[in-house]
Amino acid sequence: MIMIEKEKPLPEKGELLIKVKAAGVNRTDTLTRQNPSLEKPYPILGIEVSGIVEENHSSISRLKPGTRVAGLVNHGGYAEYVTMPADRAMVIPESLTMTEAVAIPEVFLTAYQTMYWLGELKNKERILIHAGGSGVGTAAIQLAKQLSEAEVFTTAGQSKKLDFAKELGADHVINYKKENFEKIINEVTDGTGVDVILDFVGASYWEKNLASAAIDSRWVLIGTLGGSEVDDFSIGSIMGKRLSLKGTVLTPRSDAYKAKLTQEFIDRSMPLFEDGRLKPVIHSVVPFSEVKEAHRQMEDNENIGKIIIKITEE
Amino acid sequence: MIMIEKEKPLPEKGELLIKVKAAGVNRTDTLTRQNPSLEKPYPILGIEVSGIVEENHSSISRLKPGTRVAGLVNHGGYAEYVTMPADRAMVIPESLTMTEAVAIPEVFLTAYQTMYWLGELKNKERILIHAGGSGVGTAAIQLAKQLSEAEVFTTAGQSKKLDFAKELGADHVINYKKENFEKIINEVTDGTGVDVILDFVGASYWEKNLASAAIDSRWVLIGTLGGSEVDDFSIGSIMGKRLSLKGTVLTPRSDAYKAKLTQEFIDRSMPLFEDGRLKPVIHSVVPFSEVKEAHRQMEDNENIGKIIIKITEE
Repeated sequence: MIMIEKEKPLPEKGELLIKVKAAGVNRTDTLTRQNPSLEKPYPILGIEVSGIVEENHSSISRLKPGTRVAGLVNHGGYAEYVTMPADRAMVIPESLTMTEAVAIPEVFLTAYQTMYWLGELKNKERILIHAGGSGVGTAAIQLAKQLSEAEVFTTAGQSKKLDFAKELGADHVINYKKENFEKIINEVTDGTGVDVILDFVGASYWEKNLASAAIDSRWVLIGTLGGSEVDDFSIGSIMGKRLSLKGTVLTPRSDAYKAKLTQEFIDRSMPLFEDGRLKPVIHSVVPFSEVKEAHRQMEDNENIGKIIIKITEE
Repeated sequence: MIMIEKEKPLPEKGELLIKVKAAGVNRTDTLTRQNPSLEKPYPILGIEVSGIVEENHSSISRLKPGTRVAGLVNHGGYAEYVTMPADRAMVIPESLTMTEAVAIPEVFLTAYQTMYWLGELKNKERILIHAGGSGVGTAAIQLAKQLSEAEVFTTAGQSKKLDFAKELGADHVINYKKENFEKIINEVTDGTGVDVILDFVGASYWEKNLASAAIDSRWVLIGTLGGSEVDDFSIGSIMGKRLSLKGTVLTPRSDAYKAKLTQEFIDRSMPLFEDGRLKPVIHSVVPFSEVKEAHRQMEDNENIGKIIIKITEE
């Protein structure tokens, strides 16, 4: 990564020009950085920011210059200025700082999208959330409890992550290095299994996830941290359990999709951030000059919750 | 299979007593018959009948005694009398005989459920229907064309089945013994792929189905005629293509589910049977005394469309 001087980006119709205060670090940033086929001019990384509206070229009149907003951008978030489609901007509640607010968009929208739009989580259902200490994991645990009173099972490999998941409301925390999650789930649920699985792991948990799934359950595949090559997989239980297995990635979705998701999320969830029932989870705040350190932390899976880059002072 | 004399079944509240005219043969019948763990008293096979309402113990007053109906029953269809939940009864249009009408419920409801409730087929989308000569395949081709103006790709292993699929409206017919369907689909669609796959085949087509699927497509797994053990399957494309893979079986679904499905199907499809745009597809009509022959035909995959057992004269 190199830091360069560039002109302010020019907002198009429907966009905001944002003076960036903070940017979130996401897996897609580290993957883009490592992409060997990238050529000059290198892109500006960063898909999520918080900041202050400087210009509003959209018809959403309440987003006046000076408004504090957070949201997803298509690229270029690691910068002092960025453009953002106005229909993705979340107005930041007074109770949150910009550094806190930038920890919301990517992980909470991903958790919301995968749990509700794909996982179709219903009130008081059971959900298995893998990687309970990750950004999306900590967001998903909170949403599942606060919006749906779900019974939450979560896995992680470190006891401090599991303790934290418990604080966020997880009902059953499982150390995957010491315990078999599918065995615990089947014991706790009398063999019924869970209704929704948020799977960041992929291949290495394949059969165990199948064994944990209830009849008519939804299994959402969001990551392949445990590899992507499954061998000797029997599809009989996909039919027998009437399973829905849904793969997804958020970043390449259309602008219209992200706008709709953002609006629904704002309506259902922002009031809960205002009253403190939902909380952004922050692992570290790193100055702009130390962006390499921020990426290192993510690549080493050190974090519980988000790694934030502070771009300019609030 | 043996034929025995039994008392008429007693309808419960919400049920009809039906004097059976014809019963459809289904894969679940042959599988139940072959089940080595079955013990006496053996069940009466048969999950779909047409016949005349003899008693109505439900609140659906239009199903008066004498009404001609067809529909799914929970078991016991290969008999002179059977009980049927009244909310599963389809009133038979005058244009159809009872032998024709009994060819509708299982295959058309399965095709409807898998294409619309699970596959979420939208108007003018592309669909790949495997086993285009099967009961569900011939129903699915018709529904996809008549209800959704879909672009239909279908596969079969015999040219007479493919010719018939073409007559029913299939746009692209592919002999899987001579051609690679994924290659043809990618050529015809300029690499885009199909939006929905109805998959009766399972393991042996696994990678080919993945290669045929469009971004955001829905792949409905209804059968494993090609085996159920997949080896070396890469899940990356499930995420990259944002695929939904949905397993299903209709028979064990709840009564409420079948009732809702039946009512929606009646509303959307029965008018098209009345005016002849949808047609039951019948392979053979076998007398009750030759039920073994009916099962043999199904086990040998001889049929294009339904095998019907004539129980009593109309």
